[in-house]
Amino acid sequence: MLGDFQVRTDLALEARESFEGDDVEIRGVRIEESADEEREIYTTVVRIETENGARLMGKPVGTYITLEAPNMSSEDEDYHREISEEVAKHVRTLLGKEERTVLVVGLGNREVTPDALGPDVVNHLRITRHIVKEYGRSSLKEKASPVSAVVPGVMAQTGMETLEIIRGIVRETSPQAVIAIDALAARSTRRLNRTIQITDTGINPGSGVGNHRDGINEETLGVPVIAIGVPTVVDAATIVSDTLEQLVDEKEDRQFFREKISPQLNTMFVTPKDIDETLKRVSYTISEGLNMALS
Amino acid sequence: MLGDFQVRTDLALEARESFEGDDVEIRGVRIEESADEEREIYTTVVRIETENGARLMGKPVGTYITLEAPNMSSEDEDYHREISEEVAKHVRTLLGKEERTVLVVGLGNREVTPDALGPDVVNHLRITRHIVKEYGRSSLKEKASPVSAVVPGVMAQTGMETLEIIRGIVRETSPQAVIAIDALAARSTRRLNRTIQITDTGINPGSGVGNHRDGINEETLGVPVIAIGVPTVVDAATIVSDTLEQLVDEKEDRQFFREKISPQLNTMFVTPKDIDETLKRVSYTISEGLNMALS
Amino acid sequence: MLGDFQVRTDLALEARESFEGDDVEIRGVRIEESADEEREIYTTVVRIETENGARLMGKPVGTYITLEAPNMSSEDEDYHREISEEVAKHVRTLLGKEERTVLVVGLGNREVTPDALGPDVVNHLRITRHIVKEYGRSSLKEKASPVSAVVPGVMAQTGMETLEIIRGIVRETSPQAVIAIDALAARSTRRLNRTIQITDTGINPGSGVGNHRDGINEETLGVPVIAIGVPTVVDAATIVSDTLEQLVDEKEDRQFFREKISPQLNTMFVTPKDIDETLKRVSYTISEGLNMALS
Amino acid sequence: MLGDFQVRTDLALEARESFEGDDVEIRGVRIEESADEEREIYTTVVRIETENGARLMGKPVGTYITLEAPNMSSEDEDYHREISEEVAKHVRTLLGKEERTVLVVGLGNREVTPDALGPDVVNHLRITRHIVKEYGRSSLKEKASPVSAVVPGVMAQTGMETLEIIRGIVRETSPQAVIAIDALAARSTRRLNRTIQITDTGINPGSGVGNHRDGINEETLGVPVIAIGVPTVVDAATIVSDTLEQLVDEKEDRQFFREKISPQLNTMFVTPKDIDETLKRVSYTISEGLNMALS
Repeated sequence: MLGDFQVRTDLALEARESFEGDDVEIRGVRIEESADEEREIYTTVVRIETENGARLMGKPVGTYITLEAPNMSSEDEDYHREISEEVAKHVRTLLGKEERTVLVVGLGNREVTPDALGPDVVNHLRITRHIVKEYGRSSLKEKASPVSAVVPGVMAQTGMETLEIIRGIVRETSPQAVIAIDALAARSTRRLNRTIQITDTGINPGSGVGNHRDGINEETLGVPVIAIGVPTVVDAATIVSDTLEQLVDEKEDRQFFREKISPQLNTMFVTPKDIDETLKRVSYTISEGLNMALS
Repeated sequence: MLGDFQVRTDLALEARESFEGDDVEIRGVRIEESADEEREIYTTVVRIETENGARLMGKPVGTYITLEAPNMSSEDEDYHREISEEVAKHVRTLLGKEERTVLVVGLGNREVTPDALGPDVVNHLRITRHIVKEYGRSSLKEKASPVSAVVPGVMAQTGMETLEIIRGIVRETSPQAVIAIDALAARSTRRLNRTIQITDTGINPGSGVGNHRDGINEETLGVPVIAIGVPTVVDAATIVSDTLEQLVDEKEDRQFFREKISPQLNTMFVTPKDIDETLKRVSYTISEGLNMALS
Repeated sequence: MLGDFQVRTDLALEARESFEGDDVEIRGVRIEESADEEREIYTTVVRIETENGARLMGKPVGTYITLEAPNMSSEDEDYHREISEEVAKHVRTLLGKEERTVLVVGLGNREVTPDALGPDVVNHLRITRHIVKEYGRSSLKEKASPVSAVVPGVMAQTGMETLEIIRGIVRETSPQAVIAIDALAARSTRRLNRTIQITDTGINPGSGVGNHRDGINEETLGVPVIAIGVPTVVDAATIVSDTLEQLVDEKEDRQFFREKISPQLNTMFVTPKDIDETLKRVSYTISEGLNMALS
Repeated sequence: MLGDFQVRTDLALEARESFEGDDVEIRGVRIEESADEEREIYTTVVRIETENGARLMGKPVGTYITLEAPNMSSEDEDYHREISEEVAKHVRTLLGKEERTVLVVGLGNREVTPDALGPDVVNHLRITRHIVKEYGRSSLKEKASPVSAVVPGVMAQTGMETLEIIRGIVRETSPQAVIAIDALAARSTRRLNRTIQITDTGINPGSGVGNHRDGINEETLGVPVIAIGVPTVVDAATIVSDTLEQLVDEKEDRQFFREKISPQLNTMFVTPKDIDETLKRVSYTISEGLNMALS
C-alpha cells in the first residue's frame, strides 16, 4: 500500500484511519462506533463484508471489535473488572450460543516483555478440560466451556511454525473453537496498551511482534478462531516514517524520505519503558475476561 | 511389588537394587558396569531383554544407561564437559547411524524448581529445523540433525495429556526421532542430581514429578523415543518407608509400618535445598551433550 | 529440646503443641483461640510473655497470630478476600495507630518455588514511597503508609548475610517499621499453605527454608519488625522423625531411631507437588492484605 | 547541547562522534584506537582529562574503554571467550594491583528484557564472599577477590533510589570496590548488543533504560566504582531525531523538526526483536569476564 516501505498495523481500526478523510466510505466495510462515557470505554466495530473491502483494508473478511480504554494501564481494579466484562461479552457473542470446548493459545515469546502478552494471559487462565475428563461435565457450571491451553513458543525457540504446533494439537484434542491471544503492532504509540482488538478472523500473516508466518484461522485449523490482541509495540520504521509524514507536506518528499529510512529499523520495535507493569495489568484483565466468558 | 504401598523409582538401576542380594541373577536382565575412575564417571547399562525381565523390573524391555557422576553438582566446568561428552556418545549410539530430524521435548513444570529440568534443557538447545527449512540442509554441518523442540507444560496448565500434545506435534511435523527430557524420582537421596539415565524406552506411566500419565514411547508416537532423565526428587512416602525399612528387622513389622504412612505423603516430594543451583548446572550439562550429539 | 535431633518448626502454634497434653499450662505463655466457623478461618494468638516462656517455646517474647484457613489453596476469590482482610486487620494492629513509613522485605530465594513466597508477595505490592517523595504526602490516601520494598536474595546469591543488606537499607532510608515476608518450615504437612503466622518478633535464626542466619528484628534493625510467614515446607528429617514417633511407643526406642536418621535429610525439604499453583494464590492473598493495610 | 531536545547516549565513544568532523581535537580529551583484526575486536579508549573536556563531552573525567565486537551476538563460543578475556583484562587494570573485596551490582529491571542485563550478569557470577567468611581466605585462589552481589531493582519496584540501596549495603559490608553492570542507551542502532563500555567513572545521571537518578560513583559511595555497560536500546526520540538529521540539510530546519517530535517518544525505547537471545549471550560473556578477573 505504501510502496517499498510497509507501514505496519495489526489494528483494523488503524487500517481504516489510514484512508485520508475520516468519513470516506469504503465499499464493503461498515463501521459502528459507541462510547460508554461514564466508564470511559469506547467501542468500534469494523465489519469487512466483501473481498473488495478486505483488499482495501489489507485484512480478511470478518468482524473486528476494538475496545479503547484510556486508563487500562492504570491501577484501578474496578475499572479493570469493567473491561474484563466487556471482553467476556464480546467473546461470548463471537463464540455463539452453545457451549463449546475451547483451546486457548498464548502466542508470542515469553522472554521478550512486550511479546509476552499471550503467555501471561494463559498463565492466569482457569483450565478445566482435564477436570471435565476426570469428573464429568457436571464438575463445571452449566454453560461453562471445558478449557485447555498451550503456549507454543516462537520459531527461534521451537524450530517449528506456530501453525504446525497448533494444528497438531487441534487435530489430536478436537476443541470446538480456538482463542488465540497475541501482542500486536500498532501504528500509533497513543494506542499502546490501552486498546483490545477482538476478531473472528484469527491471526494472519505479519501480525504480532514475532514471526507467526502462516494464518491461524478457521481455514487452517478447521474450527472457528477468535483472536484477542493488544498493541504493545510500534515498528521502529513505522514510527520514523509517521513522524516524517506529519512534518512533510509534499507527497513526493514523503516518498523520498521513506526510501532513506534504514532497513535495519525493520528488525526493531518501539515500546514504553514501563511495559512490565502495564502488561501485567492488561494480561490479567484479559484472563479475567476469558474466565468470565468460559467458566 | 510392595503391596498397597508403592515405593517409587524411575531408575532402572534402583529397580535392580531392590532385589535383595546384589548378585541375584534376574532372568531376562543383563547388567554391565564400567568405571572411569580417573574422571569419576560410573556407567551401568541395564538391558531388559524379555517380558519376564520387564515384569520383574517394573520397566519396559529396552536399554537403560545410567551415568553416575558424584561431582555433577559441583562448579567444575571441565568435569561438566566430560559428562556432556558421555551423554552425547550414548545419545548418538541410541539414535543410530544415519542423520535424523529430532524433536526434543522438555517435559515437566517450569514453575516448580525440581521439575523444571526438561524446560531448562530445551532453553539452552541449539534449534535448527527452521534454518534448514529456510536455507537448506547445507546450512548445518555434515551429519548434524535438524532439531526442533517444545515445552508442552503439565496437565494442570494445559488441561491436556502431555501425550496428546506431543503426538499432535509429531504427526504434523514428522520428526524421525523424539528425545524426551524429564526430572525423575529416585528412591535414594544419595542419587539426586548426580545421576543421568538415558534409555531407548521413552517415558512411561508414573515417571517424573508431575503427571505424565500415558507413555511417551515408540508405540504411542510411531517413532523411536529416547528419554533422558535426572532424579531430582524422592517421593516423600518413599523416604519415610525406606528409613523405616532400615530400622526394622522383621518383615511383618515393615508391612505394619508401611500401612500407617500418611497417604498425604503421596502428594509430596523431597528435594535438596540448593536445588536451584544444582539444576542450573545439570541442565546445562545435558543441553551441551545434546548440542554435541546433534549439531 | 529433642536432643541431637532437632525437630524444626517456625510456627509458635506447633511449638506449643509439642508439649504433651493439649491443656498443659506453660508459665509465661498465654493462648487465645477463636473460630469464625462461617468463614472457616481459625485464629490462635500465642503470647509469650516472659523469658521463661520464651525458653520453653524456643521463640522470642512477643505476639504470634496464626490464621488457619483450610481452603486457602482453593480458587475461591471471595474466600481469599476475606483472608486478606484478616491479614490487614492484624498488620494494622501490630503496626499501631499512627501512620508510618514501611519497608517490606521479601525474604527467600525466588528460584526455589516453595521459598519464593517473599519475592512473590513483593511483586504484587503497591509501592508508594517514591511517589510521596515526588508529589508529596497528599498523593496518598489519608492514613496510608508510604511503602518501599526490597528482595535481598539469599546468601548463595549475594555472598552477604540478609541482615547486612536489610540493615544497610534501613539505615539509609529510615523506614519507621519493617515487614518481613518469609516461607516457613512447619512440623506437620497438614499445615502447609493453609496457615499464616503474623508476629511482632521479626524473623529469628533458623527460620524459613533458606539460611537467614541472624535475627531480623527490632534489636538488630532499630525499628519494629513484623514478620508474616506461611509454612510451605517440612524439613525432611522432621517428617521421618515424626512418622516414627507415631509408630513407636517407648521413649528409648524413639531416641534410638532418631539417631539413625540420615544427616543428609537435614539438607532436604518436603513440599507438595502442586506448590506452584498454591503459592501463587497464597502470595497474592498476602499482597492484597498488605495493600489493604498500608494504602 | 541540542537545545530543548536531548539526544541521549551513554557511550563516551558516541559523545565524541557527535562533534562534526572525526578529527576535530577536543581539548582535555584523548582518544586511542586499536584493532585486533584477526579476532575482530576493536578497542577505543577515551580519556577525559579535564573539566573542560568533561563539559564538552557531557561525561565525567575518567577513562572509558569501548570494545566493539561485531559478532558478539552470534553463537560462536570461542569468540565469546575471547571477548570475556578482554573484559577481564580491562577490569583487572581498572581495579588495580592488590586484591580487593568487590560488590557487583546488577542494575536495571529484570522484568523488561533489554533492561535485564545487570540482573542476568549477576545470575551467572561466582559469589565467594560468604565462603571466605566461613572458610577463610585460603578457600579462594591466590589473588582472587571475595565477591558479593546484589540486584537492587528499579524505583517503581522498590520505592527507593538505587543509590540509597547500594550506599546502605556498601556502608554495611565495606567492599573495597563496586562493579556496576547496566544496560545503556546508544545513539545508533548499529551499536546495540555489540559494544561493551568499561569505565572507572561509575554510573551517572540519565544512564541506562530505567531511572537511576543519582550517580553511583566514587563520590557517592566512597569506594572506586567500575561500570560495565552494553547498549541494548536507543531512545525512541533519538532515533527519530537522528533520521531527520540525516535527511535535512539546513540547521534551522533540523531545529524546527526536533521541536515537533512527540514528547511521548521520550517514554519509549527502540530495541531489536531478537533481544532475548542476544542478551543471553552478551550477559554470559560479561559474567565470564568478571569470573576470570575476580576468581
